[in-house]
Amino acid sequence: MTTRICVLCGGVGAARMLRAMTSVIDPARIDAVVNTGDDTVMHGLHISPDIDTVIYTVANAIDPDRGWGLIDETWRAVEALGRYAATRPDTSMAGATWFGLGDADLATHMYRTGRLAEGARLTTVTDEIRRAWDVAVRVLPMSDEPSPTEVTLGGDHTGQRVAFQDYFVRLRHEVPVTDIHLGAADVSATPEVCEAIDAAELVIIAPSNPLVSIGPVMAVNGVRERLEQRRDTVVAVSPLVDGAALKGPAADMMRDAGLRSDAAGVAALYAPVAATMVIDTVDADLADDVRAAGCNSVITDTVMADPQVAARLAQVCVDAAVNRR
Amino acid sequence: MTTRICVLCGGVGAARMLRAMTSVIDPARIDAVVNTGDDTVMHGLHISPDIDTVIYTVANAIDPDRGWGLIDETWRAVEALGRYAATRPDTSMAGATWFGLGDADLATHMYRTGRLAEGARLTTVTDEIRRAWDVAVRVLPMSDEPSPTEVTLGGDHTGQRVAFQDYFVRLRHEVPVTDIHLGAADVSATPEVCEAIDAAELVIIAPSNPLVSIGPVMAVNGVRERLEQRRDTVVAVSPLVDGAALKGPAADMMRDAGLRSDAAGVAALYAPVAATMVIDTVDADLADDVRAAGCNSVITDTVMADPQVAARLAQVCVDAAVNRR
Repeated sequence: MTTRICVLCGGVGAARMLRAMTSVIDPARIDAVVNTGDDTVMHGLHISPDIDTVIYTVANAIDPDRGWGLIDETWRAVEALGRYAATRPDTSMAGATWFGLGDADLATHMYRTGRLAEGARLTTVTDEIRRAWDVAVRVLPMSDEPSPTEVTLGGDHTGQRVAFQDYFVRLRHEVPVTDIHLGAADVSATPEVCEAIDAAELVIIAPSNPLVSIGPVMAVNGVRERLEQRRDTVVAVSPLVDGAALKGPAADMMRDAGLRSDAAGVAALYAPVAATMVIDTVDADLADDVRAAGCNSVITDTVMADPQVAARLAQVCVDAAVNRR
Repeated sequence: MTTRICVLCGGVGAARMLRAMTSVIDPARIDAVVNTGDDTVMHGLHISPDIDTVIYTVANAIDPDRGWGLIDETWRAVEALGRYAATRPDTSMAGATWFGLGDADLATHMYRTGRLAEGARLTTVTDEIRRAWDVAVRVLPMSDEPSPTEVTLGGDHTGQRVAFQDYFVRLRHEVPVTDIHLGAADVSATPEVCEAIDAAELVIIAPSNPLVSIGPVMAVNGVRERLEQRRDTVVAVSPLVDGAALKGPAADMMRDAGLRSDAAGVAALYAPVAATMVIDTVDADLADDVRAAGCNSVITDTVMADPQVAARLAQVCVDAAVNRR
């Protein structure tokens, strides 16, 4: 096969799947379209958390325990930043140390920020960064335009609308979310993203949060309609296993949104764009519900605990889509 | 004495003198007005080299060997930045590693950048930073407005006009300068700077580069006329000793500008604004030339090799101005 495969990605789960795919497919044939709804500017630096997680993971430079950031990282800059917390005004975010910025990781943000300031597109800069890490997978931000995801909080923070990282990192996603606002809905996919989807023989929706990771990717102008038109060759991997996410708040957010917080709930979201959903072996009893929600189901181990499982999952996704052609 | 002393400052030489002054004068009585013509934005971060040198030095946190940056510094971020140099376009400054950005030092630039992005004035942010370092000297940027110093180069670079740090750090000030362009001439001194000069019993011009460190401070709208009106109580310390600067390109730049590259040349520049010039013992034979240029001369050791000499120099400056009242 010399055809291309396009993978819609959030952060950690998608990155692990991508890395596994590179063991069964020539990485140069893979286009990763990555969520930038989590992007933020902190201390003047443009940070693209999902893009960095994807690149660092495929480069085998990710910290395996944290799942984000670089291995063998040091934290001198962010520790030194703590000095300024005491003197800044209460309302200021400057000097905030809750966002994990490792010293070596900072270089990526500094380079990205410098290039964007020179007028380069995020797509161009991302390509430069993945090449610097010898990543053969093509990594494409979903859009070059800022498209911030924000959430309205419940619980003790009822009614507060905050930036995604504020909820996700500062509040450790421990607060209910009553509404999700996708800046992505107001921007366009890049030409590269549209071409990647059009050129792909298969599109895989990685096991990422359907609402705040894949949601933004599908919301950018140009993506959803392309997927709908080719849903037979779109395969989604459920990020929920036994009703829970391996990492992150996906299950809670689904529940807060009034959706089923299991693979069938995910299928209901993806059915218009994906004919097939890969669900975990432990969720075999959900196959009928997944089908009722509108997706064929393929059952396999999806918890990428070791490289063999991950590689098999990648192969199953490829086969599933190929079988639908 | 409960009166205030105002010190016009560049970087290293001024910072050492200020630190010495705090041993003979209550630091809370000192206002340091600092050059920001060297300020630059690199990788999206707002860097104020002279302000940081002043604050770190007075806080006894400066690296004593380098004379800039923090002691016990690490360099992981800037080393990691090197990875990106290979993939960036030739014309790009992003990923440039020639500007020394230590990991802990980065926190200062990140904090400053974050606060400026929130709309804070550089004066406010600088005050927050010096307080975070427990520096009792009040540190005032000469202006809140960008006022970049640029130089036109000679030699192998004839005709090139570059940013100051490009000349000073990247080219290691080894290239002749045929012209100096002070962005400071187009901006105004802050109200705090004007008040500090007006309120000071004595103004001291620190031993910094007259053309590119003190030059910008005097060029901002509001400073020079204030000094001219009170020149009897303004004392300058010659940064040139035996016709050479202790550090930096002051002597070469004076020569390139067609000026005498010694204490008498400095006196010719400062005579309109300073009645008195402190010159080094080794330059005692220049006293007549200094007087001919328009300044009274006071002769003492000005090379701040140890704290005692520095403290004595500080005391001589104070006395010299007091004696002129």
